[in-house]
Amino acid sequence: MSLEFQIHQASGRGRRATLTLPHGAIETPVFMPVGTQGTVKAIPQHLLEELGVGILLGNTYHLYLRPGHEAIRRMGGLHRFMSWERAILTDSGGFQVFSLSDLRKVSREGVEFRSHIDGSTHFFSPEHSMDVQIALGSDIAMAFDECTEYPADRTRARASLDMTLEWARRSREHFEKHKSSVPWTLDRAPGTGHRAHSFEGQSPSLFGIVQGGVFADLRRESAERLVEMDFPGYAIGGLSVGEPRELTREMIATTLPLLPADKPRYVMGVGYPDEIAEYARMGVDMMDCVLPTRAARHGLLFTSKGRLNIKNRQFAEDQGPVDPACGCLVCRRYCRAYLRHLMAAQEPLAAVLNTLHNLAFYLETMRTVREEMAKEPLHRQPEQLKATHVTD
Amino acid sequence: MSLEFQIHQASGRGRRATLTLPHGAIETPVFMPVGTQGTVKAIPQHLLEELGVGILLGNTYHLYLRPGHEAIRRMGGLHRFMSWERAILTDSGGFQVFSLSDLRKVSREGVEFRSHIDGSTHFFSPEHSMDVQIALGSDIAMAFDECTEYPADRTRARASLDMTLEWARRSREHFEKHKSSVPWTLDRAPGTGHRAHSFEGQSPSLFGIVQGGVFADLRRESAERLVEMDFPGYAIGGLSVGEPRELTREMIATTLPLLPADKPRYVMGVGYPDEIAEYARMGVDMMDCVLPTRAARHGLLFTSKGRLNIKNRQFAEDQGPVDPACGCLVCRRYCRAYLRHLMAAQEPLAAVLNTLHNLAFYLETMRTVREEMAKEPLHRQPEQLKATHVTD
Repeated sequence: MSLEFQIHQASGRGRRATLTLPHGAIETPVFMPVGTQGTVKAIPQHLLEELGVGILLGNTYHLYLRPGHEAIRRMGGLHRFMSWERAILTDSGGFQVFSLSDLRKVSREGVEFRSHIDGSTHFFSPEHSMDVQIALGSDIAMAFDECTEYPADRTRARASLDMTLEWARRSREHFEKHKSSVPWTLDRAPGTGHRAHSFEGQSPSLFGIVQGGVFADLRRESAERLVEMDFPGYAIGGLSVGEPRELTREMIATTLPLLPADKPRYVMGVGYPDEIAEYARMGVDMMDCVLPTRAARHGLLFTSKGRLNIKNRQFAEDQGPVDPACGCLVCRRYCRAYLRHLMAAQEPLAAVLNTLHNLAFYLETMRTVREEMAKEPLHRQPEQLKATHVTD
Repeated sequence: MSLEFQIHQASGRGRRATLTLPHGAIETPVFMPVGTQGTVKAIPQHLLEELGVGILLGNTYHLYLRPGHEAIRRMGGLHRFMSWERAILTDSGGFQVFSLSDLRKVSREGVEFRSHIDGSTHFFSPEHSMDVQIALGSDIAMAFDECTEYPADRTRARASLDMTLEWARRSREHFEKHKSSVPWTLDRAPGTGHRAHSFEGQSPSLFGIVQGGVFADLRRESAERLVEMDFPGYAIGGLSVGEPRELTREMIATTLPLLPADKPRYVMGVGYPDEIAEYARMGVDMMDCVLPTRAARHGLLFTSKGRLNIKNRQFAEDQGPVDPACGCLVCRRYCRAYLRHLMAAQEPLAAVLNTLHNLAFYLETMRTVREEMAKEPLHRQPEQLKATHVTD
C-alpha cells in the first residue's frame, strides 16, 4: 500500500482523515512546512519532530541543482540524506522554473532554463521532473505543470491549461513506469529514534494539479480531465499568486466538488493562518506555504491576536511571550524583548526561535481545526465516510 | 555564599573541583561557551542545557550598547532576559573596547570609544564597567583591564600593566560597594524547568586579571599585586593574542604557581581542543573561547582525528558522521555530505548543527580530562585538597 486515505468524518465544514504514506501517517487537514533545500530553514530535524511535523516539502528545482538528484539517489534518497524519516512531498520544479522569467524558454516539450546559482543551462520536461522526484524518493510527487500567472487573460489561461493537461498525462505515464525505482532504504540513520519498517511493495504517489487561472469553466475542465486520468490525489495550483483573496476562495470552492471525495485534496502555496483554517473548513486536506518560515526570518510573528512585527520599538522591554495563548517552546521560555533584541542584533538565533514559533502556531491552527471537527455532530455523508482510497 | 571552590583532587597534572556560584554549580576544569550578545550564536538555550553547559560568557561591551545594561537591569538582569538560569560570567568590556583601535582614546581615567554600531561616543572606566556588569547581574564579573597587545615591548607592557593594576584596585573598590544591587530575581521565566531558589545573601564575585605581556617578571609582579588585593578568583589575560603557543604555555606555567591554590584560575580566550586539555592539565580551572562557535559558522569542525573543513569537495557524498567517536546529536543523526550541502547552500541550519557539534566536542574534551583525573592515583597536596574557598 503506497497511499491510503481514510476519512473519519466529513461535513459541509471540512473533513478529518488519516493519510498513510510509505514514510508514515498524517492526520489531515494538515499544514506542510517547506524545506526548500533539504532543510526547513534554521530548524534541526529533531525539533521538527517535536513540533509534530509529519510531512514536509522538498523543492525539486533546488535539490536538482544542489546537491543534485543523482547524488541524493546515490546516498539513499532525500529522507536519508537529510535524516528525515517522516513523509516528504516534492513539488515538480515547475513553479521555480517558471519564476525564472528572464532565464527560461518554454516549449511543449518542456522548459529550458538557466540556473540561478551559476547560469548553467538545464532542461525540465514532465519526464525529467518525474525522474528527479523519483531519485529524491519523495512519498508524494507532483505532476509537472505550468503555474499560470495572475493576471492572465482567458486565451493565455486556456493555452497554459492545455499544456499542463498534456504534461499531466506525460508525467503520469512516465511516473507509473519508473516509480518503483525510488531509493528508499531500510538502513536508517542512527539516532533518529524510528523503528525500521519495510518498504517492500511500496512506491510513491503522483498527484495531478488543477490549473485554469481564475476562470471557473477552465478550472472545471482541468479538474474533469485530470480525474479521468485517475490520480491518487489532486492539487489546486495557480492560486495565491497575487489574485484577491475572494478569487482564491471562489476558485477553491468551484474546484473542490469536482474532485473525488475519497481522495486527498491539496491547495498549493497557501496561506495566512486564517486562510488555512478557512480552506480546511471548505474541505481542503493539505496545504503548504513558505509564509510562516519566511516571515519568521523577517521578524513577522503570528499570534492568536493577529500578526506582530517583533522588530518594533514597542517590544524593546516587553517581558511577555509572543503569544500568551501559545504553548510552544519559544512562548514558554522567551520574552518579546529578547526576540526583538535577537533581530536587532542580527543574531542567527532569531531565525531559529521565530521559525519555531510560527511553525508551532501553524501546526496548532490545524490541530485546533481537527479537534473542532472531531467535536462536531456528525453530518454523515455515507459515500464519503466509508471512503478509504488505497493505491498500490 | 556567593562563590565556593571545592577542590576534589589536585596533582601536578591538574585539579578537579566544583565551583558553586549563585546560579549553580560547575564541575571544573570547565570550558565556557561565549554568548556575546546574550546568545551563543544560533543555539537555543534548551539545547545548551542538553549539551551540559553550566556557565557561559556575556560580553559587557556588546550588551552595554545593545540592548543596553539599564534595559537589561529593568528586565531583571541578563539571566532572565535571555532565559538562562545557569551561571554567567561577563568580561569587563575592555577587550572589545581596546579592539576598536581607530575608535578609542585611552587615559588613566578610562577609555573613550565610538560604538561600532552607530558611531556614538561612550566612555568606560573601571567604575563604569563594574556598574554595567552589576546591572547585567553576572555571577562572575571581571576587573576592567587593558589587554596588552602582542608584540609589545617591555616599556609598553610595563606601562599597560601599571594601568591595569590601578584599574583592578578601582574595579574592586567600586564593585564591593555596589555588588549587592544585582537585579537577580526569584520569579523565573516559566518553562525553564528550574526550581526557584533564593538569592538572599548572595552577590556576584569579581576576578582580577593578570597581565604583563610575555615578560615573566611582569607577570609575576602582576600576580603578586593582584593577590594582595585578595580577589575570589584570578584570570590570566593577554594571551592567545598572536604570540607563539610556546609563549602562551610558558606564561601560564609561570603565572599559575603565583596564584592562590585554593581559588579558581581562569585563562581567557583559549583555545584549540588540545590547548584547553593541556592547560587544564597544567592546573587551569576555567577557559573560554569563541573558536568552537566562530569556526563552526565557517565550516571548521573539530574531531577526535583533528580538524576538518566540512565545505571540502571530498565530503560531497560522505555518508559518515563528522566524528565517528562523537556521541553528539549531530554525529548521531547527520552525515558529512548533508552538513557540506547546508554550508554550500548557505542554509542557516549549517550554523546550528556545526555549532552544536563543536560545542559538544569542546565540552566532551573537558569531561574527558575530568574523568581521567578522577581515575588517577591521588598525589595528595594536603593544603590544596582541604581548600574550600568561600566568599560572601
